[in-house]
Amino acid sequence: MITIKLPDGTLVELNDGATVKDVALSISEGLARNAVAGEIDGVLVDLSTKVADNNVVRIITMRDEEGLKIYRHTTAHVLAQAVKSIYPTCMLAIGPVVENGFYYDIEFKTPITQEDFSKIEKEMQSIIKSDLPIERFELSRKDAVKLMKEYGEKYKVELISELPEGEPISFYKQGAFVDLCRGPHLPSTGKIKAFKLTALTGAYWKGDSKNKMISRIYGTAFEKKSQLDEHLEAVEQAKLRDHNKLGRELGYFTTVDTIGQGLPVLLEKGSKTVQVLQRFVEDEEYIRGYILTKTPLFAKSDFYKISGHWDHYREGMFVMGDEKKDKEVFALRPMTCPFQFQVYLAKQRSYRDLPMRFGETSTLFRNEDSGEMHGLIRVRQFTISEGHLACTPDQLEQEFKGCVDIALYMMNAIGFENDITYRFSKWDPSNKEKYIGSAEEWETVQNRMKDILDNLNINYVEAEGEAAFYGPKLDIQMKNVFGKEDTLVTIQIDFQLAKRFEMEYVDKDGSKKYPYVIHRTSLGCYERTLALLIEKYAGALPVWMSAEQVAILSVNEASEDYCRKLNAKFIEEGLRPALDIRGEKIGKKIREAQLDKVPYMLIIGDKEVENGNTVSVRRRGQGDLGSMTIDEFIAMVKKDVKELKLD
Amino acid sequence: MITIKLPDGTLVELNDGATVKDVALSISEGLARNAVAGEIDGVLVDLSTKVADNNVVRIITMRDEEGLKIYRHTTAHVLAQAVKSIYPTCMLAIGPVVENGFYYDIEFKTPITQEDFSKIEKEMQSIIKSDLPIERFELSRKDAVKLMKEYGEKYKVELISELPEGEPISFYKQGAFVDLCRGPHLPSTGKIKAFKLTALTGAYWKGDSKNKMISRIYGTAFEKKSQLDEHLEAVEQAKLRDHNKLGRELGYFTTVDTIGQGLPVLLEKGSKTVQVLQRFVEDEEYIRGYILTKTPLFAKSDFYKISGHWDHYREGMFVMGDEKKDKEVFALRPMTCPFQFQVYLAKQRSYRDLPMRFGETSTLFRNEDSGEMHGLIRVRQFTISEGHLACTPDQLEQEFKGCVDIALYMMNAIGFENDITYRFSKWDPSNKEKYIGSAEEWETVQNRMKDILDNLNINYVEAEGEAAFYGPKLDIQMKNVFGKEDTLVTIQIDFQLAKRFEMEYVDKDGSKKYPYVIHRTSLGCYERTLALLIEKYAGALPVWMSAEQVAILSVNEASEDYCRKLNAKFIEEGLRPALDIRGEKIGKKIREAQLDKVPYMLIIGDKEVENGNTVSVRRRGQGDLGSMTIDEFIAMVKKDVKELKLD
Repeated sequence: MITIKLPDGTLVELNDGATVKDVALSISEGLARNAVAGEIDGVLVDLSTKVADNNVVRIITMRDEEGLKIYRHTTAHVLAQAVKSIYPTCMLAIGPVVENGFYYDIEFKTPITQEDFSKIEKEMQSIIKSDLPIERFELSRKDAVKLMKEYGEKYKVELISELPEGEPISFYKQGAFVDLCRGPHLPSTGKIKAFKLTALTGAYWKGDSKNKMISRIYGTAFEKKSQLDEHLEAVEQAKLRDHNKLGRELGYFTTVDTIGQGLPVLLEKGSKTVQVLQRFVEDEEYIRGYILTKTPLFAKSDFYKISGHWDHYREGMFVMGDEKKDKEVFALRPMTCPFQFQVYLAKQRSYRDLPMRFGETSTLFRNEDSGEMHGLIRVRQFTISEGHLACTPDQLEQEFKGCVDIALYMMNAIGFENDITYRFSKWDPSNKEKYIGSAEEWETVQNRMKDILDNLNINYVEAEGEAAFYGPKLDIQMKNVFGKEDTLVTIQIDFQLAKRFEMEYVDKDGSKKYPYVIHRTSLGCYERTLALLIEKYAGALPVWMSAEQVAILSVNEASEDYCRKLNAKFIEEGLRPALDIRGEKIGKKIREAQLDKVPYMLIIGDKEVENGNTVSVRRRGQGDLGSMTIDEFIAMVKKDVKELKLD
Repeated sequence: MITIKLPDGTLVELNDGATVKDVALSISEGLARNAVAGEIDGVLVDLSTKVADNNVVRIITMRDEEGLKIYRHTTAHVLAQAVKSIYPTCMLAIGPVVENGFYYDIEFKTPITQEDFSKIEKEMQSIIKSDLPIERFELSRKDAVKLMKEYGEKYKVELISELPEGEPISFYKQGAFVDLCRGPHLPSTGKIKAFKLTALTGAYWKGDSKNKMISRIYGTAFEKKSQLDEHLEAVEQAKLRDHNKLGRELGYFTTVDTIGQGLPVLLEKGSKTVQVLQRFVEDEEYIRGYILTKTPLFAKSDFYKISGHWDHYREGMFVMGDEKKDKEVFALRPMTCPFQFQVYLAKQRSYRDLPMRFGETSTLFRNEDSGEMHGLIRVRQFTISEGHLACTPDQLEQEFKGCVDIALYMMNAIGFENDITYRFSKWDPSNKEKYIGSAEEWETVQNRMKDILDNLNINYVEAEGEAAFYGPKLDIQMKNVFGKEDTLVTIQIDFQLAKRFEMEYVDKDGSKKYPYVIHRTSLGCYERTLALLIEKYAGALPVWMSAEQVAILSVNEASEDYCRKLNAKFIEEGLRPALDIRGEKIGKKIREAQLDKVPYMLIIGDKEVENGNTVSVRRRGQGDLGSMTIDEFIAMVKKDVKELKLD
């Protein structure tokens, strides 16, 4: 007899040779039925794994996070088995679980297409129906290599050779199919109830672009068909909002192969909305005492050597020239800081001048990997509301608070306040060479920042290793429609660069001191914000930032001139009209204005021309608002704009 | 006896061996006294040159343009003689006449400083006082080289070796001083009445930065002392307006060595005025039917190969990477055209869509030589109101006219209308490889452009070889305080790039055609315009574009709060106040606001605080405007802005 302990402390007596499944059975039949795997002393194991005296044993069900992962991992093995049975010459690489599903990387002799999915899914169904038991076994390194060579699995052979000495080399077998795998797995293939293959892409072996590109099949699996359907529907809905599709269709932006990746071209709508947002930010910053600057977009390498970018950020920079042979080497700027510091340095500063707040609509350049780029969200060139504050130690909290305040004002103005989360990004003390400054300085400033954040009652998560190389950050994060999170706004405390650039101020006692510097954005990067706006509002942007606020549609030729006059009047009043006086049917024009998501629509026919003073107004999402005078209509739109109304 | 002809056709009989001087004497003693040199059959010669039968002879006096040049050239020789006598080891390079004076490039064993000028000028005076005759003589190439080697003049030896075979090699001698020179010269050094050495700079031998840098001494000379004084005074006045000095002093911009040459940092005032101008241009273009774009600042080399920039403009571009070893090579854009074309290309276009007008506040990059750069006028990175119009052949004249119209509207708005001149820049048919397109196409489009310009009654000069590589241009030119002319605005007709980028439109008959493209700016480059504004207005910019419109000065501590309230109110009303509540004496604050050239000044003391509703206003250049209510004051400033009032 052995005694094991359950997580709640209960002791259970079992026969020698009992398995995790037996532990579950000892608790209840229901639990045993729902059990997916187990955990012995903190290590995930199969249900068939034997327990030993004094083990702490936990039963994993689908209610546990690990349960769904194991379920999906087994589905990946079923996928691999199906593929091997249909394409016996293919070679398996790796098949891990990812957020919302799994994938398997496979090299095919002849690449498959997404049209082959139904065939593969059918074979997977048949494997599930056979309810093959899934069994684990271990081999010596020599035998493991021999087995995988027999199967012709060169990637698996490579994987085995990379396993550390002493680590058990385990395989899982279901029917005739065997796969190298750490496990655990479901006890049999029949446990899988609902799955779907979702995408086919290319992937480099080990993620390295120097290696061969092979195929990656994505799939997902759920406990119930209804959950799968719900998930697939949510993905479909998200895709409809995907800015990378919708933003192109609506004429916000396009991309051009010969220009290059990560360099989107903003079309009329994208340019106009960015212009509106940019002016909004510049004006708000002016009101809040920011000093506008306009600094160069590139500099000599000498400059980045002072700032530290040359040593700590060079990989991310676009460099012009070669230090070995050229007299001058330049680099495009990845950040505005050292440039904006020059405005501070243009005069001698005293404590009376502080705090100083500098703001710039700044264009930055970062040499992102081609795999990382995505629509307007991750690009190689972007424009950002960048600013830097110089202040005394006494002013730090107040100024930091002011930065949070303007950022939240902006987040509210564009309707993101419930979509954002906060991340306190700290340094990684085990990776000191990535940063400048001493460990003591880092700890001091991080503690100071933590106090400020706690005083502000900000509900943040901490992220080690995400700090800038010169100091810790508060990042305001937001997810795109696919659940991928990015930073929208950042507020950073810098206790290093002022010293490097000899930015001093004369203090009350006449001594020279270095100010604290806050690096911050207020709306973040306009391209990324635009992308998230398109996704949040499914392209129907609020009136105040809409590139086209009112569509003017002529019913017939006789009303064209009147439409032109209205158009000119609206422009004069500062509205943004979209004139449509094409010789098309009015029904078609209305449909197109709707598809274009223009907030207001005026249909101008004989009656309106004759009357000369009223318009009948349709509002996006609200339908017919009835008839009103032109002045009333203009006042209504202006009110939307002034109040930054979100539809 | 010989007979020569005067320019008016008069025949004059003279003895054999008569000189140009004799011709002058034969006309009048006064003319002979004023004669500087002569011209025989179109070739400039000395007064001592003998005339021959049938020659056409013209007498050059100081009234002729050539007269002053010869006068100044002789002064350059006097400079050289003086320098050689004081620094016998120095070596002379070249000493030509330039606008407003002359220079001489000289290599000194130990470089001189401007403090040595008085010593040199004194020696020059003494040479002039001696009234040395200036005599010409010629030598064979061999003897010429031998002579210059004897004098240790290695630069002159090099110059002789480059003279074409058969060309006479002439020297001029005055006293013991001999210089290689084509001439002509004044007959004696005593003819020089008024001169001044003005500047000392470095210069590369032959202007090539691979060669050694030697010293360049600038000077000027006039017929009368009063003219010299007037000129020097005008230069002093111009220097006071020099944006490169005044713009720095007033806080418009600065430069930073470690960032690099030609990359100015715009400070508060420069950034704000550029922001105001930029919004003004964007809004006016929107009213005139321009479509806003925002396109990437760099692209792959592939892209510039299509546009032709790679073959025709590469020297002027900043390139990132090396085509021999890098997978992707990028270059910063020197022009916006190919990028903005992508917006046209984003959709299929029909004749109904034309004309299309695209506008962008665009940043461009040009790799200027370090010697060419100057303040904000010639820089390596600049921001420009760039636009492109696509139109049918029928629309070309109308659209071109529209471009001229908006440009002149802008020139009027900033007060430049009487300072600008027009240049019709054509191709150079003898240098076809610089351009794309056939000779026939060039002639056709140039004739079309000439007709348009003539119809518009524009008073232009023609400039061969100044066209863009893709078509002819109308350039609007303006001079800076030093008389150096640059292009402010350009309007170009392009009949080539639409084809290269396959920019088509479907015409009425269903056939596909290429539109004409007009490349144009409306205000030109903001940095350059700002420079010329600072120079024109000596830093006192009109209210509507002034970075700071109204200085609010507190008289004492008790008025500080009230000043802060006024400041906030003005910002809310869209004004740009400058708050000065430092604990300084009011006299000092007034002086500083005056030096800062702020248009309006409000002095706030006990009376204003008590009253709470009125302010006493001072206006730049007008003095005290008396007391008015705050609302009246705000309305007055708003009127200045709305009417784009120029002080």
